[in-house]
Amino acid sequence: MSTISPVLDRLDKNLDQSLERLFGLLRIKSISTDSDYAADCRKAAEWLVADLKLIGFDASVRNTPGHPMVVAHHDGPAGSPHVLFYGHYDVQPVDPIELWENDPFAPAIKEVGPDHKVITGRGSADDKGQLMTFVEACRAWKQVHGNLPCRITILFEGEEESGSPSLKPFLEANAEELKADFALVCDTGMWDRETPSICVGLRGLVGEEITVKAADRDLHSGLYGGAAANPIRILAKILADIHDENGHITIPGFYDGVEETPSQILKSWETLGETAETFLGPIGLSIPSGEKGRSVLELTWARPTAEFNGIIGGYTGKGFKTVIAAEASSKISFRLVHKQDPEKIRAAFRKFVEARIPADCSVEFHPHGAGPAIQLSYDSPFLAKAKNALSDEWPKPAVTTGSGGSIPVVGDFQTYLGMESLLVGFGLDDDRIHSPNEKYELTSFHKGQRSWARILDALTR
Amino acid sequence: MSTISPVLDRLDKNLDQSLERLFGLLRIKSISTDSDYAADCRKAAEWLVADLKLIGFDASVRNTPGHPMVVAHHDGPAGSPHVLFYGHYDVQPVDPIELWENDPFAPAIKEVGPDHKVITGRGSADDKGQLMTFVEACRAWKQVHGNLPCRITILFEGEEESGSPSLKPFLEANAEELKADFALVCDTGMWDRETPSICVGLRGLVGEEITVKAADRDLHSGLYGGAAANPIRILAKILADIHDENGHITIPGFYDGVEETPSQILKSWETLGETAETFLGPIGLSIPSGEKGRSVLELTWARPTAEFNGIIGGYTGKGFKTVIAAEASSKISFRLVHKQDPEKIRAAFRKFVEARIPADCSVEFHPHGAGPAIQLSYDSPFLAKAKNALSDEWPKPAVTTGSGGSIPVVGDFQTYLGMESLLVGFGLDDDRIHSPNEKYELTSFHKGQRSWARILDALTR
Repeated sequence: MSTISPVLDRLDKNLDQSLERLFGLLRIKSISTDSDYAADCRKAAEWLVADLKLIGFDASVRNTPGHPMVVAHHDGPAGSPHVLFYGHYDVQPVDPIELWENDPFAPAIKEVGPDHKVITGRGSADDKGQLMTFVEACRAWKQVHGNLPCRITILFEGEEESGSPSLKPFLEANAEELKADFALVCDTGMWDRETPSICVGLRGLVGEEITVKAADRDLHSGLYGGAAANPIRILAKILADIHDENGHITIPGFYDGVEETPSQILKSWETLGETAETFLGPIGLSIPSGEKGRSVLELTWARPTAEFNGIIGGYTGKGFKTVIAAEASSKISFRLVHKQDPEKIRAAFRKFVEARIPADCSVEFHPHGAGPAIQLSYDSPFLAKAKNALSDEWPKPAVTTGSGGSIPVVGDFQTYLGMESLLVGFGLDDDRIHSPNEKYELTSFHKGQRSWARILDALTR
Repeated sequence: MSTISPVLDRLDKNLDQSLERLFGLLRIKSISTDSDYAADCRKAAEWLVADLKLIGFDASVRNTPGHPMVVAHHDGPAGSPHVLFYGHYDVQPVDPIELWENDPFAPAIKEVGPDHKVITGRGSADDKGQLMTFVEACRAWKQVHGNLPCRITILFEGEEESGSPSLKPFLEANAEELKADFALVCDTGMWDRETPSICVGLRGLVGEEITVKAADRDLHSGLYGGAAANPIRILAKILADIHDENGHITIPGFYDGVEETPSQILKSWETLGETAETFLGPIGLSIPSGEKGRSVLELTWARPTAEFNGIIGGYTGKGFKTVIAAEASSKISFRLVHKQDPEKIRAAFRKFVEARIPADCSVEFHPHGAGPAIQLSYDSPFLAKAKNALSDEWPKPAVTTGSGGSIPVVGDFQTYLGMESLLVGFGLDDDRIHSPNEKYELTSFHKGQRSWARILDALTR
């Protein structure tokens, strides 16, 4: 007998009750950035603990210097994997409140088109609706089978929207308790309405600020121009030297640890239909600026970058001043992929810069954080199983994607728990998270529950 | 009989009286930037008109929309050249007043060392003391010979320290009256205490501001980095391309009209003892940044430059923001020499920039003024005569110098009166013009008078 079919049936039958439960959570104003709502945040944590206890989890509210964590444990059959599920119960503020069509904390079902319903309210997509898809999958499984298919630990955070100040210390202090075989992180989206996505690559980041110093004072460009070093000229030369004419980064050793993306992955990305036009058109551009001969998805998901985030020097007000500045500076960030070592990149960059500083000038470096890329192996068995499970549920097969940005919790799981993450979520680009009129597709909520049931089933086979 | 000896004798005998007259002028608070002193400015103009009338000039106060001009005419022998002498009677403000050792408008003679006296007070060097050296030379000549050696027109301005807003319209409106064979401009300094200098080259200037525009909004450098054009990168590349590794400017046609400085001039500059160390050391530098193989004096006096006066783009506050800016901009100036055409340079630069803008980005140009270089021929007979005259007066021979900056009146004389200028002055680098405790060497005042007498004598031979 199939173990999954009755669970899916149960989820279908329970949809209305699961919505009632979600609405209960959505009504709690757990805005983490505003201390006026601290009690609401605790209330949301307590609500979740109570609900998880009903399913049979050993759940508790865990205090931190900020908003509490929710930690819950449930055993699984001997020999089954141990997964950690992560989500967050805190939400963004609701300002500007006057732009909301409905009370952000009075969730409702809204029919926006034929056979098209959405759940409205703050947190519906980010992240209460998403985390409850997993809770509902566990509930249905328990109801049908009397147990869960594997050992599950749940971690719900209450500070994700306010920079997660308590997360690292909490992971460090509770590493033994929280460490699992891998993590399931549910805070991302679908590729599109019909295509589920698993994000397995997140770029790392190295930030640097450099200040080039020349004369010990600002100079008159008439009296000194042509004789005195100009720090803007030196800085421009350094920045210009970082990319060659093919968009390749020229810093020696920069590409150490960068791997070529497997051709079948590249091919799967091609099928997504994202082109330079579709990706860059909406922001008024059309030509990819990175390494030539690579698609925009590869450039943003699987290739490292050097970007200049800010530059300043000399006179920048209205009009003109014939000055040669004493110094000029730039903020520069490198997005890293695969096994690039952030501190090696930082050292190589500094050497590259120093080699371009004239003997009578100097440079000061100011570091701005560093984190390695996260890359799950494309041939991980967990990934293959999760992809198949998602593909069974949705109209189109699941795609393996990357993300150009960083999701800090994934790096923290890697660092403090030595554990990889699969990022699976059911949000859509138009969910308006962080904005007025946030919504979550009813389909996302329903098929999201079914997806998790399928994934849990697949992971334990 | 020598015509000059008795004039020099008279100047020596009249020194005390000439100081009394100068003090009278220095006591007038003719601060042109502060409208509270408008009546004082007019008083200074009237004082000068009265004094010039005593010598026999046809002198008058000439109203402008700002402070008045002084214009004075005196005939010379038939066939003698006609010279226009320029100086300015307005002075800088005196703040911070508490740093003055004496009342800035109570001039005095101060003995600062053995046989070393200075005239103290605002305007003593800039420019009342200087312009009175010429007036005293005329007075003595008239007293001795009953006439002047050549036709002389005098123009004293009262707005030099406040941007000369009335000068161009005045020159344009009175061009016929003011046009002479050449101008003598007395608002510069000696090479050193013993070496007089004639400045015959002033660099011109073209100012440009460029704004490179990429995406239609600021972007997240994680999500878009590697795909979207970065305007700071484009701008840095443009700026970096402007100079080659030898400090040569690469803009096509940039050096059109630039002439090589005659070798005897270069040799005379070598004798001045200015080196990269002496020129750049005081500002904390040591290596000339311009074209390789040329001295700092040639680089700043006789070679064109491209200098970056300001740059800004992206996030420039504290900390870090992973942004790709929508735009970045830079203020750029070109110092011009010899016959470089400012508008041709501007056009060539814009073409150079446009060729480096990706097809999906754009650039906006904002012009910031333009003026050609001023260059008197090194073989002008007036120059040779003036140099000899100065060499006769001072311990060391006069040198022909250039100036890296611009002195607008010289360009205006060229433009509106079609007339070249010889820049002769007796200031020293330590005169503290524009600062508290301004002074003028008694030697500068005395030998300056004698120098003008010798120059007038020489010019008419």
